[in-house]
Amino acid sequence: MSVLPNPSAARQGRALLEARPLVVERGVSRHAEGSARLRLGHTEILATVSIEAKVPPHVRGKREGWLMAEYSMLPRSTQDRMNRERNLQNGRRHEIQRLLGRAFRVALDLSHFRNQTLIIDCDVLEADGGTRVASVMAGYAALHDLCDRQVKAGTLTDWPIRSPLGAVSVGLVGNDIRLDLDYSEDARARADLNVIVTGDGKVVEVQGGAEGEAIAPELYIELLRAGVGGAGTLLASLQRQL
Amino acid sequence: MSVLPNPSAARQGRALLEARPLVVERGVSRHAEGSARLRLGHTEILATVSIEAKVPPHVRGKREGWLMAEYSMLPRSTQDRMNRERNLQNGRRHEIQRLLGRAFRVALDLSHFRNQTLIIDCDVLEADGGTRVASVMAGYAALHDLCDRQVKAGTLTDWPIRSPLGAVSVGLVGNDIRLDLDYSEDARARADLNVIVTGDGKVVEVQGGAEGEAIAPELYIELLRAGVGGAGTLLASLQRQL
Amino acid sequence: MSVLPNPSAARQGRALLEARPLVVERGVSRHAEGSARLRLGHTEILATVSIEAKVPPHVRGKREGWLMAEYSMLPRSTQDRMNRERNLQNGRRHEIQRLLGRAFRVALDLSHFRNQTLIIDCDVLEADGGTRVASVMAGYAALHDLCDRQVKAGTLTDWPIRSPLGAVSVGLVGNDIRLDLDYSEDARARADLNVIVTGDGKVVEVQGGAEGEAIAPELYIELLRAGVGGAGTLLASLQRQL
Amino acid sequence: MSVLPNPSAARQGRALLEARPLVVERGVSRHAEGSARLRLGHTEILATVSIEAKVPPHVRGKREGWLMAEYSMLPRSTQDRMNRERNLQNGRRHEIQRLLGRAFRVALDLSHFRNQTLIIDCDVLEADGGTRVASVMAGYAALHDLCDRQVKAGTLTDWPIRSPLGAVSVGLVGNDIRLDLDYSEDARARADLNVIVTGDGKVVEVQGGAEGEAIAPELYIELLRAGVGGAGTLLASLQRQL
Amino acid sequence: MSVLPNPSAARQGRALLEARPLVVERGVSRHAEGSARLRLGHTEILATVSIEAKVPPHVRGKREGWLMAEYSMLPRSTQDRMNRERNLQNGRRHEIQRLLGRAFRVALDLSHFRNQTLIIDCDVLEADGGTRVASVMAGYAALHDLCDRQVKAGTLTDWPIRSPLGAVSVGLVGNDIRLDLDYSEDARARADLNVIVTGDGKVVEVQGGAEGEAIAPELYIELLRAGVGGAGTLLASLQRQL
Amino acid sequence: MSVLPNPSAARQGRALLEARPLVVERGVSRHAEGSARLRLGHTEILATVSIEAKVPPHVRGKREGWLMAEYSMLPRSTQDRMNRERNLQNGRRHEIQRLLGRAFRVALDLSHFRNQTLIIDCDVLEADGGTRVASVMAGYAALHDLCDRQVKAGTLTDWPIRSPLGAVSVGLVGNDIRLDLDYSEDARARADLNVIVTGDGKVVEVQGGAEGEAIAPELYIELLRAGVGGAGTLLASLQRQL
Repeated sequence: MSVLPNPSAARQGRALLEARPLVVERGVSRHAEGSARLRLGHTEILATVSIEAKVPPHVRGKREGWLMAEYSMLPRSTQDRMNRERNLQNGRRHEIQRLLGRAFRVALDLSHFRNQTLIIDCDVLEADGGTRVASVMAGYAALHDLCDRQVKAGTLTDWPIRSPLGAVSVGLVGNDIRLDLDYSEDARARADLNVIVTGDGKVVEVQGGAEGEAIAPELYIELLRAGVGGAGTLLASLQRQL
Repeated sequence: MSVLPNPSAARQGRALLEARPLVVERGVSRHAEGSARLRLGHTEILATVSIEAKVPPHVRGKREGWLMAEYSMLPRSTQDRMNRERNLQNGRRHEIQRLLGRAFRVALDLSHFRNQTLIIDCDVLEADGGTRVASVMAGYAALHDLCDRQVKAGTLTDWPIRSPLGAVSVGLVGNDIRLDLDYSEDARARADLNVIVTGDGKVVEVQGGAEGEAIAPELYIELLRAGVGGAGTLLASLQRQL
Repeated sequence: MSVLPNPSAARQGRALLEARPLVVERGVSRHAEGSARLRLGHTEILATVSIEAKVPPHVRGKREGWLMAEYSMLPRSTQDRMNRERNLQNGRRHEIQRLLGRAFRVALDLSHFRNQTLIIDCDVLEADGGTRVASVMAGYAALHDLCDRQVKAGTLTDWPIRSPLGAVSVGLVGNDIRLDLDYSEDARARADLNVIVTGDGKVVEVQGGAEGEAIAPELYIELLRAGVGGAGTLLASLQRQL
Repeated sequence: MSVLPNPSAARQGRALLEARPLVVERGVSRHAEGSARLRLGHTEILATVSIEAKVPPHVRGKREGWLMAEYSMLPRSTQDRMNRERNLQNGRRHEIQRLLGRAFRVALDLSHFRNQTLIIDCDVLEADGGTRVASVMAGYAALHDLCDRQVKAGTLTDWPIRSPLGAVSVGLVGNDIRLDLDYSEDARARADLNVIVTGDGKVVEVQGGAEGEAIAPELYIELLRAGVGGAGTLLASLQRQL
Repeated sequence: MSVLPNPSAARQGRALLEARPLVVERGVSRHAEGSARLRLGHTEILATVSIEAKVPPHVRGKREGWLMAEYSMLPRSTQDRMNRERNLQNGRRHEIQRLLGRAFRVALDLSHFRNQTLIIDCDVLEADGGTRVASVMAGYAALHDLCDRQVKAGTLTDWPIRSPLGAVSVGLVGNDIRLDLDYSEDARARADLNVIVTGDGKVVEVQGGAEGEAIAPELYIELLRAGVGGAGTLLASLQRQL
Repeated sequence: MSVLPNPSAARQGRALLEARPLVVERGVSRHAEGSARLRLGHTEILATVSIEAKVPPHVRGKREGWLMAEYSMLPRSTQDRMNRERNLQNGRRHEIQRLLGRAFRVALDLSHFRNQTLIIDCDVLEADGGTRVASVMAGYAALHDLCDRQVKAGTLTDWPIRSPLGAVSVGLVGNDIRLDLDYSEDARARADLNVIVTGDGKVVEVQGGAEGEAIAPELYIELLRAGVGGAGTLLASLQRQL
């Protein structure tokens, strides 16, 4: 009953190592301390930053703040409707928000946010593959928006971002290495990696592996290198728009 | 720390009985059977319709379908961030989605959807007062989108909508009757009604009353009449855009 | 398998605008700070007031207290047994307890209860229609019991009740306007309003509308006026018994 | 702030081995298949029997039915108000409803209820010690009410009760063995047993032991014998009223 | 599909009043303040003691600490796998951990643990009947381990154990009184008691009764005496190994 | 208050690229269809395989079975006690059990288990770093135990394991690449990868990255290669013991 993307049209003329167009807009929320809306192809993420004036027990007494991420999909962002209650307890959701939290804590110097907790909410408005890497970049853009506003307002004196974040998925579809899989490619991939990098091309995290059959280490390294390159290209596109 | 609307600018030149501009777009979701995005001033709702091929026990064996509504706010659609888990159990949320379900079941003839359950998800992307009445109209627009597609596709032979829905809030602020309160007005209102009407100006539901001090029946009726009128005007605006 | 009321006997000689007999008893609990048991026809409510020496965050620092209501049905107060866990998460329950809380906060001047939270528990022992309006009056009677005891004990120096509360349901059954629907009438009603009034006949809240087909505004106002009248009559009966 | 029983008045002239007066009324619910309201001193229980036309997996295919019990306290049946959500997960509640279920399954021959599940709800309206033994007897009275109605209606051809149930608490307060402790005695008891017996004086279950210091086996047996006797006396009182 | 014990081999040469061999090892956890692993036949329990520097509200201000027990079964400690979430809400689990808490609070003088809460976790690694009595003894051994370490370390100056704990199940299988039932015997027992005693043969708690048919008081007392004897024998075996 | 490992003794003479000793025992559960207990240094895992005769919806109608993994820590397997309820909802737990499920589905050919779901439970009895990689190997050993039993019993005609699994953590501590970090090393690591390989040295999954500062791609690849090597060595040790 749903409107399925036509699988034959999947890459729509994209080269194998070409990501989908990335479009980002900062400052989209009237209420949040920082925000961004980001589209990567048909995948759309709304990210907001909220600041609370408290820290969890393991940070108390240290001269820094804390940051945590939440990821959630709107019930009908996907082909089949997802139940809200079940969605909150979903294992995939927990896996992704832990990945996001680790990445954002690499990007930001939390010593500028003493006794504060930053919560980055990444909500998927529409999903067509790559929601976790799109969330990395949307969340980074919202953090950038926050810092920009606070520096302009004089709340922050120094620029607290240690490094911008780029991210991309890279997969093995048939015998091809393909960058930035959409949903129809992702469903057929033999291997699938998510690669997060910093502005100077260093690795923040790699997550992923084989679907079905294990892959040779040299092929894995080739995928990884393609991911590092592609994530850098997307990051360059993101930075031009901030 | 949040960007508060300036209360003195609240009505921004609107007359007391003038609603905020309503903008609606149909067919905004690639996955949902029907969808709409609606803005009423700064309040923004994304509504989707999903169809499941089953009905709850109390409908089984009857020659009709069922319809239920869900309402939820994105964590940072409001001034203070809302916790997701607590949000799901929130009493206000339950109150609103029961109101929405009753209204949509008046609007739609469910005998055209035998053995099916329609789920209308109304997600608040940004809140500035009036989210429940905006959800009534966003959900109605998504239902209209669904029916339009299904009639065009030949899945439905008859137009199943019995009546379009308009809705508005009306309040008593100081001694003024005001239509379509934004957040800053709502917080000061002495009485607050939500009025839902059909295309021929009949009443679907009225909900609301005094905040603080009870009000005379004749004043209540005056508020009600203002609401019926205002809801009709918004409905006319909505219909021009579908 | 259950003992159903005979529908033909529904109104049992009552006139269309005549409510069922109301019987109330105060001070029925050995433990609660205030309490009442109220019967409206076969509907029976046990209401208790509990006082806790704390207030929720949004009241702290203000020179007043807070009041919240809980509503629950015993598992077999109804024709089919209700599961306890599901009952607690039930949307209808949340809708009713929000209505009750708003009404009781109109009735009581909370500046006499600084730094205290009053919890009004309305438990349905037996249900035959009208449980929410019976709960409004049972809860009011329990509040009256509380205030009476505290004034006599010298804990309160002033009478803190701003206004007594009366409430009734009014519906459209066939072409008749009927007051105080029992379960069998409620199931057939084309429209159903719950009206809450104060002792001087002002409106606290009106909630309700069409079941199936929308109704003309003038008919809605007629129902509303019948409800205001009927609620006043029940309130007079209630006050004679306190 | 609550109305406490005067501890000095605790036994109110009762002999040490004398239980409080027991008053029971059958058929108190219009909806339930069987019901009873029972008072033991100031402790008051409402018990209902509900029948569902299904059995849990471990009974399927056997030529019998199933029976389960639920026990719950109204929020203000006790001196301090109990939170409803926490109350449902309460360990004491689970312990008691398992005891009740075992006892009722001894009392009733479930081969007369094939493919049916009987649910006995015991709700504490007011608590003053002994709620679990009062629930045993209230639930038994509700079962008796059910059987009586079904035999009269011809739904059951044989009397399915194998044995009536009596129950009492017995404790060691100071050096005295006391029967049927009220709340103030229970709080001071050095040992506390709950004893359930059948009509012919046999033991269904004994539960309990030392509070603080262990007790000699011969003293334990003395307590047990006092309990068996007292439970029999209460059962006789119960049966005279059914 | 599971490996069932052969029921004909059930007692494997044991006399009717002979318990299964008990093997206990102290100090098995690197992290816990006290710990023990105990086998009773094929039933295996891992018990740990954790100390938290806070007490629940009802203990605050008293010159003592608090102790609570948790009991849980690993998902596949039993013949059929148990769901983890359901396992936590399981009524039997709550019943057992309340029994354990009461017994351990008799064994230990909590005035030596002011402002501290001891949590005894009893996790069933493998179940073959008697898990609750094995947990009593495993938990006692872990408490003994804790006290021994703290006295040696000088954290405690006095030995805080008031009495060691022994425990055993005793049942009526056919017409035989049997001690320490394994799973296959337990499933056939007509009556089943759990008896907990102290080192000087006093009773801490007795829990249990008839399965199916009530039993004569004198037979109940005979079972009780067999249990007191058997629990003492197991306690002697336990003490030799500590 | 807990018994902490001495950090200076952390590697206890191990070379930087040397894993801790691995000890595994198969067939340790009387009830499970397959089982193993595995120690990697002081980290100890109990893994069981359970088979249920049903599959989730997305597998129905396919000619294969399904496999899912659960991971849990006993409350006191760690330095600070973990609350059981919170533990079940823990994000880290969900992240790990998704990793485990993917790895086991690579290892096993599920076409031999049509219409069956295999549940692999990995319970941490004691934690000292590396619990997720130890769980990969413990779960694999339990799967091997299952297959061995079923082939011997004739339930399976072919050997359904596609590939054995080895796994290890590899980290950057100071400037050293270290294999198989224990808890004290893990807490200081600048980068931390978990690497899972098959018997022929191919990659199943890599998960991990920087802690604090991003790392150069070439260094990441060096860590990855060390992990592939180390995982292979542990797998060889595991296979010798099966």
